[in-house]
Amino acid sequence: MRVMGVDPGLTRCGLSVVESGKGRKVTALDVDVVRTPADAPLQKRLLEVSNVAEYWMDTHRPDVIAIERVFAQQNVSTVMGTAQAGGVIALAAARRDIEVHFHTPSEVKAAVTGNGRADKAQVTEMITRILALQAKPSPADAADALALAICHCWRAPMMERMAAAEAMAAEQRRKYQARLKATAKAARA
Amino acid sequence: MRVMGVDPGLTRCGLSVVESGKGRKVTALDVDVVRTPADAPLQKRLLEVSNVAEYWMDTHRPDVIAIERVFAQQNVSTVMGTAQAGGVIALAAARRDIEVHFHTPSEVKAAVTGNGRADKAQVTEMITRILALQAKPSPADAADALALAICHCWRAPMMERMAAAEAMAAEQRRKYQARLKATAKAARA
Repeated sequence: MRVMGVDPGLTRCGLSVVESGKGRKVTALDVDVVRTPADAPLQKRLLEVSNVAEYWMDTHRPDVIAIERVFAQQNVSTVMGTAQAGGVIALAAARRDIEVHFHTPSEVKAAVTGNGRADKAQVTEMITRILALQAKPSPADAADALALAICHCWRAPMMERMAAAEAMAAEQRRKYQARLKATAKAARA
Repeated sequence: MRVMGVDPGLTRCGLSVVESGKGRKVTALDVDVVRTPADAPLQKRLLEVSNVAEYWMDTHRPDVIAIERVFAQQNVSTVMGTAQAGGVIALAAARRDIEVHFHTPSEVKAAVTGNGRADKAQVTEMITRILALQAKPSPADAADALALAICHCWRAPMMERMAAAEAMAAEQRRKYQARLKATAKAARA
């Protein structure tokens, strides 16, 4: 499975592509950070981020895009732009029928370090080790984009099992309701 | 000038097109509300909003898009989706080289009712009167989209004068600094 990881942002937007193999094997194929000038109009910045992300999707042809889920509780002055950058990338994926998943920062930290409250240095350290990189990815947004992709690679099998279990439970609930209805109808007749 | 007004949202996104004439004359050309299902994945909802907005841009060919500026302080549970809906519409405008302007809710209310703290009923009432509509626009998102477009039509001349004044001030500041530098250089020589 090929996963494109996105740490969304307007000032710096981290992009990565990671290929997952057997078990927990993951290989980094590419990583970069897109920057847009703070004094450019919002729509131009979104266009720049979108253009680069679309180029990555068309070049690397990922199966899934994993984007960091942004919360309104975070830094208020930048959160709207961050949400919008993530939004235009999700839109580009939808146009290409590529699956999109959102992961929270603590899910990402927990997946790669085992600790949902790990700091940036710990995440970077683990990413460097997991991917056997010769140098630490820099800036932090590059490491975060790699962490997001790895998080998705490792959570995906569990998410699939959860979805299958939920679908089976829903199906059994539906059957049970139908049986109940039939019994009630028979009793009334 | 033809202005497309956008009250961004995922559950309901208000779209309008208003043509401005001489003085404060404004005519509504179209208004509608796009709805997307709450249980659809975010990227599909953004795609739907984007597709409709792009169709409007290509059909009505507006000179400007006026979008409501969203604040993180508003309703936290819906604010991210609202920001993202506005973001994908701004992106669609950027792709077409259409100017984009953002107006805050209080700027819009002040422009159409004279009161930045007017309630929804007052805004709808004034919009109906200003545009001489035979029925009140409904739902509120339709009225808001019309209010945004009218706000832009009326604020645009002032915004242009402000921008021109600021540019002139910057130019004079630049000239003054250059003169100052030349004087200092001459004194040193």
